[in-house]
Amino acid sequence: MIEVEVKASVKDFTDVKKNLIKIGAIKIKNEHQRDVYYNAPHKDFVETDEALRIREIPENGENKVILTYKGAKMDDVSKTRKEIEVEVFDAENMGLILENLDFRSAATVKKDRDIYHLDEFIITLDTVYKVGKFVEIEIEAQENEDTSIPLKKIFETYKKLGIEEGFERRSYLELMEL
Amino acid sequence: MIEVEVKASVKDFTDVKKNLIKIGAIKIKNEHQRDVYYNAPHKDFVETDEALRIREIPENGENKVILTYKGAKMDDVSKTRKEIEVEVFDAENMGLILENLDFRSAATVKKDRDIYHLDEFIITLDTVYKVGKFVEIEIEAQENEDTSIPLKKIFETYKKLGIEEGFERRSYLELMEL
Repeated sequence: MIEVEVKASVKDFTDVKKNLIKIGAIKIKNEHQRDVYYNAPHKDFVETDEALRIREIPENGENKVILTYKGAKMDDVSKTRKEIEVEVFDAENMGLILENLDFRSAATVKKDRDIYHLDEFIITLDTVYKVGKFVEIEIEAQENEDTSIPLKKIFETYKKLGIEEGFERRSYLELMEL
Repeated sequence: MIEVEVKASVKDFTDVKKNLIKIGAIKIKNEHQRDVYYNAPHKDFVETDEALRIREIPENGENKVILTYKGAKMDDVSKTRKEIEVEVFDAENMGLILENLDFRSAATVKKDRDIYHLDEFIITLDTVYKVGKFVEIEIEAQENEDTSIPLKKIFETYKKLGIEEGFERRSYLELMEL
């Protein structure tokens, strides 16, 4: 699966939230996410622009845990990249397996995420601890699909939300390490 | 967790099954297991004596999937080693993540396993496709525990089962590749 995604830095969510309602977006849920990023023993993911992450989401007194691999970004304007996810039952043992395979935890990113749906888009409002506030618009595409059309639609949606600047290709991990 | 384990090659299970009943072992279940073993990009698990495996067990029309890391064997007489397991929801995506991290699937081992419990022991009767029939006796220990006592008990149990030879420290993966 390819994740076609554009992120923008914003000062606050007040206008964005009004505009989301105006264009018909539906708020699905709010999540707290705790992401631990790992680096590889045989190459530096900072250089290869890949990412490996264990995400924990507290949900009904339990933790939902997702292991995610992200490939390198595929164009110069967005964060479009290959993404593979698998849900796992236990963050601690998943982390121990990665560490025994010589992967090293590089950083932890914590955020609160409001998730909206609008047609085929997922729109998220992220408050990232020690980094700032961001809007992300995302759509899934097939591996060999032309991503220029979904990308154009994403930027049109940003315009409707009143956002025409502040686009950010760096990950929260990179922004946190500045 | 440390897996203290001894395996023995047998011609057939007839006498073993009789003796298992005689000493009070309880048959818990039968499983079909399909194990895909992976090798690492930064070292050769054949040399380091480690293992990384995705196990699929068909169960009630679904597949139970377990990712397992095994450390190097810790003594000269048994297969005692560190073992870390995590259940995952999807074997295909777990495999894709490993492959994108440059791990390579090395071999697939298929077997039918009868699982018995006897006190603190797990005793398994394995029919391994293209390899043969094996009895395994296993007990879990803590990471800093002296494993000589559980090992002694395991060999005493083998004696009660009428097995005093055929002990095998090589993995099914190694035996399959002979």
